[in-house]
Amino acid sequence: MTYKIAILGASGYTGAELVRLIANHPNMEVAALSGNSKAGMTMAQVFPHLRHLDLPVLTTIDDMNFDGIDLAFCALPHKTSQEVIAKLPTDLKIVDLSADFRLRDVAAYEKWYGNPHAAPELQKEAVYGLTEFYRDDIKSARLVAGTGCNAATGQYALRPLIAAGVIDLDEIILDLACAVSGAGRSLKENLLHAELSEGAHAYAVGGTHRHLGEFDQEFSALAGRPVEVQFTPHLIPANRGILATVYVKGDAQVIHNTLQSSYLGEPFVEVLPMGEHPSIRHIRGSNFCHVGVVADRRKDRAIVVAALDNLTKGSSGQALQNANLMLGEDETTGLMMAPVFP
Amino acid sequence: MTYKIAILGASGYTGAELVRLIANHPNMEVAALSGNSKAGMTMAQVFPHLRHLDLPVLTTIDDMNFDGIDLAFCALPHKTSQEVIAKLPTDLKIVDLSADFRLRDVAAYEKWYGNPHAAPELQKEAVYGLTEFYRDDIKSARLVAGTGCNAATGQYALRPLIAAGVIDLDEIILDLACAVSGAGRSLKENLLHAELSEGAHAYAVGGTHRHLGEFDQEFSALAGRPVEVQFTPHLIPANRGILATVYVKGDAQVIHNTLQSSYLGEPFVEVLPMGEHPSIRHIRGSNFCHVGVVADRRKDRAIVVAALDNLTKGSSGQALQNANLMLGEDETTGLMMAPVFP
Amino acid sequence: MTYKIAILGASGYTGAELVRLIANHPNMEVAALSGNSKAGMTMAQVFPHLRHLDLPVLTTIDDMNFDGIDLAFCALPHKTSQEVIAKLPTDLKIVDLSADFRLRDVAAYEKWYGNPHAAPELQKEAVYGLTEFYRDDIKSARLVAGTGCNAATGQYALRPLIAAGVIDLDEIILDLACAVSGAGRSLKENLLHAELSEGAHAYAVGGTHRHLGEFDQEFSALAGRPVEVQFTPHLIPANRGILATVYVKGDAQVIHNTLQSSYLGEPFVEVLPMGEHPSIRHIRGSNFCHVGVVADRRKDRAIVVAALDNLTKGSSGQALQNANLMLGEDETTGLMMAPVFP
Amino acid sequence: MTYKIAILGASGYTGAELVRLIANHPNMEVAALSGNSKAGMTMAQVFPHLRHLDLPVLTTIDDMNFDGIDLAFCALPHKTSQEVIAKLPTDLKIVDLSADFRLRDVAAYEKWYGNPHAAPELQKEAVYGLTEFYRDDIKSARLVAGTGCNAATGQYALRPLIAAGVIDLDEIILDLACAVSGAGRSLKENLLHAELSEGAHAYAVGGTHRHLGEFDQEFSALAGRPVEVQFTPHLIPANRGILATVYVKGDAQVIHNTLQSSYLGEPFVEVLPMGEHPSIRHIRGSNFCHVGVVADRRKDRAIVVAALDNLTKGSSGQALQNANLMLGEDETTGLMMAPVFP
Repeated sequence: MTYKIAILGASGYTGAELVRLIANHPNMEVAALSGNSKAGMTMAQVFPHLRHLDLPVLTTIDDMNFDGIDLAFCALPHKTSQEVIAKLPTDLKIVDLSADFRLRDVAAYEKWYGNPHAAPELQKEAVYGLTEFYRDDIKSARLVAGTGCNAATGQYALRPLIAAGVIDLDEIILDLACAVSGAGRSLKENLLHAELSEGAHAYAVGGTHRHLGEFDQEFSALAGRPVEVQFTPHLIPANRGILATVYVKGDAQVIHNTLQSSYLGEPFVEVLPMGEHPSIRHIRGSNFCHVGVVADRRKDRAIVVAALDNLTKGSSGQALQNANLMLGEDETTGLMMAPVFP
Repeated sequence: MTYKIAILGASGYTGAELVRLIANHPNMEVAALSGNSKAGMTMAQVFPHLRHLDLPVLTTIDDMNFDGIDLAFCALPHKTSQEVIAKLPTDLKIVDLSADFRLRDVAAYEKWYGNPHAAPELQKEAVYGLTEFYRDDIKSARLVAGTGCNAATGQYALRPLIAAGVIDLDEIILDLACAVSGAGRSLKENLLHAELSEGAHAYAVGGTHRHLGEFDQEFSALAGRPVEVQFTPHLIPANRGILATVYVKGDAQVIHNTLQSSYLGEPFVEVLPMGEHPSIRHIRGSNFCHVGVVADRRKDRAIVVAALDNLTKGSSGQALQNANLMLGEDETTGLMMAPVFP
Repeated sequence: MTYKIAILGASGYTGAELVRLIANHPNMEVAALSGNSKAGMTMAQVFPHLRHLDLPVLTTIDDMNFDGIDLAFCALPHKTSQEVIAKLPTDLKIVDLSADFRLRDVAAYEKWYGNPHAAPELQKEAVYGLTEFYRDDIKSARLVAGTGCNAATGQYALRPLIAAGVIDLDEIILDLACAVSGAGRSLKENLLHAELSEGAHAYAVGGTHRHLGEFDQEFSALAGRPVEVQFTPHLIPANRGILATVYVKGDAQVIHNTLQSSYLGEPFVEVLPMGEHPSIRHIRGSNFCHVGVVADRRKDRAIVVAALDNLTKGSSGQALQNANLMLGEDETTGLMMAPVFP
Repeated sequence: MTYKIAILGASGYTGAELVRLIANHPNMEVAALSGNSKAGMTMAQVFPHLRHLDLPVLTTIDDMNFDGIDLAFCALPHKTSQEVIAKLPTDLKIVDLSADFRLRDVAAYEKWYGNPHAAPELQKEAVYGLTEFYRDDIKSARLVAGTGCNAATGQYALRPLIAAGVIDLDEIILDLACAVSGAGRSLKENLLHAELSEGAHAYAVGGTHRHLGEFDQEFSALAGRPVEVQFTPHLIPANRGILATVYVKGDAQVIHNTLQSSYLGEPFVEVLPMGEHPSIRHIRGSNFCHVGVVADRRKDRAIVVAALDNLTKGSSGQALQNANLMLGEDETTGLMMAPVFP
């Protein structure tokens, strides 16, 4: 059978990435597309790279007809998403790509996002969408919250280590190099080519990045005690990809063994041989995450490096992976395309 | 059924691109890989982005076993290719990605490549691999010669116009912006990031580029008289893509109509609405070619702009498209993935 | 003596480039800076790369005091510039970097810019600022109009050839590769890193680019008859530089000789040996223009390639060169810094 | 007076950068250039961006005449440099840009570089060239060893803090983003544009990078006890610049005060206001180093970020700064040019 899919907010990068991926999915069909500011336009006008596809014209959300829609992806801005989703049919399966349902705690949400949540009951219902770790919950979920792309990268490096208790929980430093598409298609001076190209800078330094809310929630739950990491993202002149260099205290070989056994059989997470570490150029455009471990010269210190594509495994690919589970499809359907290199 | 595929010269960019594409093909399987200088290595070592695939180890060509192989792609360097192919089983279907069998004329080959051809009888047998224009010949061919990537781009812009006689044959100028992967993985100073990034320069200026041999052969055959174009390629700081800006004399509307009717129904060639023109960022990683026409302010002059991905539609995607035809598969199988943007 | 300099519109790229250059000038001092939308801010806040300089705070133009100012650079947007300059002290020396005073003809201005000129008498007074060709007029001018950056590049390739009558005036094609800083610091979707990087596209195709007004004016004046060129600019993923590939009909050796003798003794225009051609990476950040000539394989056709940095020789460097002349300084003062490579 | 300068190894990036800087120096003249593999060529052939300069032809080192030379810069490969310098006139002032004389200890040199030192007595004589901290020794030195570019960046962030005892010496992590020109003009696969662009990866992970030898030497000497830092460099797709993100334990305000008072009056080191941090795009092509401090959300943890241009402040600019001191010139002569942005 062919599932009918709606995409809300199809005029942004994650929306376009969803269309790209679904076009390669044998059992899904894009049945409705919204993009409020571009309603009435074709996708070919908004994203000429999708010109060859036969796609519905963009509408407003209000004009969308959800009859017969099997699942909706919401690729709307933060805060807008919760308001829109609260009004959608209550039996519609939804994968939300915004930040609105990532945090389970009302107070934590308000702390990191600065406003009270508009749909706290949905916040409770939502399942955190890091597929490899919430697979069973996702299968039966109606509403899945896509993770932050930085948050996903860091968790692939760290979750098994925290769960297994093989690293010092008080001494975790995540240093990330992030490509620019993670910031979306918004018109900001620091995203201009002339500003960013030949540049590199840290942002949200010192513990102010909202994805810390996810790290705190997930790592503390895993550890059974509060865990606070240090996290410094950097913007680099590349379009896709996040490279997380994670400094931990623990035995490198034990760490490698732990990761390897945790990800054994996982279709999308590749643990590299001991001592090797990944590059973002090797996961571009794909749903794969590469993880490597290197021992430091200092005893009981290790560096874990994880790489994924922020638009694919970090958001739209993860969303499709979750949608597959929610619809009873094989988790990997439409997602096994190899990375594009060079 | 699943066809068994061999790739000779799998350690270069076009070889890796073939593996990427075939991994997405439901009826093909990579059964043998050669890479003389990297024999004994796994593809994951040579191309870590293919790490998730279950692939044969690289061997030397001599060690390759062609029993049961349905088709071989040769992604070897120019001149090496003709020597190798001459020794392959004579009933093996072959798609050659080198320049060795693009020119039908022995003298033309020697003029452009500087050496006598080592397999002139095969040179005669080979079918020129620009699929849309040699489709029937390719279906029944044993040996297909992949076109040059620049040559392909220019021909998509010009062939229908020359065939229809709607442009001045003596006043054709092709100005190309070419991404760097077209130069392959060879270690040359001008291909270093520090040299190329923030740079742009013309090369093979004045009519010395070897792809002119293809333009001369094909355009003259189409016109039934000698046609010599001017052709200036430029290297730009991008990894994939060729943008051909073609200056012609003729009526822009007639030109657009001619292109539109020629490519009607073609799965991979998209003619844009009159007055629009393409960008390489919208065909990246895909087998699509976008073509646009704009009228110049000067009467009876038009600009035709064509864009394709040199590694896909310009070489490995084209090769797979041809292989599909040679094996009786649907031409588009494994090739309909949407471009990767951004 | 030290000249006191004012810069109006210092918060854009050409304004910042002027500050960079003047900081290296032994006899000039930045005495006043305006930036209406950033009034009250320091330059270090707007352009952190100028942090080490002791500069005046940005003011509004209305708050600027022109007493004691020897010369003002106007780096304001088109149309705003003419309105502002019309109200400046009538004895103030001015170098305007906008498009407002490039065209001498009132009707031509209105044709290309779509509005009647607000200061037609100043339009008549202004001297066209292509230093090498208007040197004497510039020395005695009060108001100099900086040329378009594309217009400058094309003219360095063509003016001597048109003046000498060594090329066919009806068959000139200018194909340009332009870096992104030429579009300024404005927030446009197609200037985002994620859109432009790994991209390349033509713009203003077909003869709609406003710099054609300059080409028409200057080339027709030189030839003593109307000359209309074809001109297609392309945006490439680089920050600085314009590469003009110019297709002309004429004898390549005569063309090279003509350029060489025309630019003999010019401090900033370098004619390369016959058959060589330039790259934008070799003029980055400098006031130099490199010009090369290559013969095409077709008789009596040649390719002239010119390269310059759009922000330096194409605008702010040219402006300073002109200011030097207007103030009686040596033309090269503060401008001999070598290009930055890599 | 004009000092006569020789540059040995002028065909690499640091050699070219020296020529660029000296061209802007009022009291220095490039009198001799060597480049063994390019002997007989002009600099315009090797580095077309220097085409406008009147420079000596490249010779072999053996053919160089040191009569009348006031100072030589050695921009030779590691290991070659010590062999060449050992044979130079013993009264010649020398600034070496290689790694050969950075380590004072014979055993440390052998440990990090894998071979016994060929000129151990010179190793003892050499002064470490981090100008701001060895100024007096450099003034009277005959042989100055330029620091590693990564080593310089890290030291600007850390030396004052270690000297003042305001951070935990056992918990220092340096995470660096390094532009590609630091790897020189050598032909390596991972330096190709097609490999590096759109990529990012760590290298020398786990404490194997040779610049650690410098960190160990300098930080231990400052602290009066062994100090071992963790250091992970990353290669990013940019040409110039190093961004060091340094994780330390200590009070952020104290750290900021310490840096600010240490660099008070330094012409090239700019400490940003508390809470701000630098970008490599704001120091490109200049001799400036920007340093910022941000408090982490976790008590007594801070992030210090330092940025400099690896080819200028990180090597050739530093070298010229030292040469100025050695010749009795003002330290800043020829080095005050503003960064090139965008």
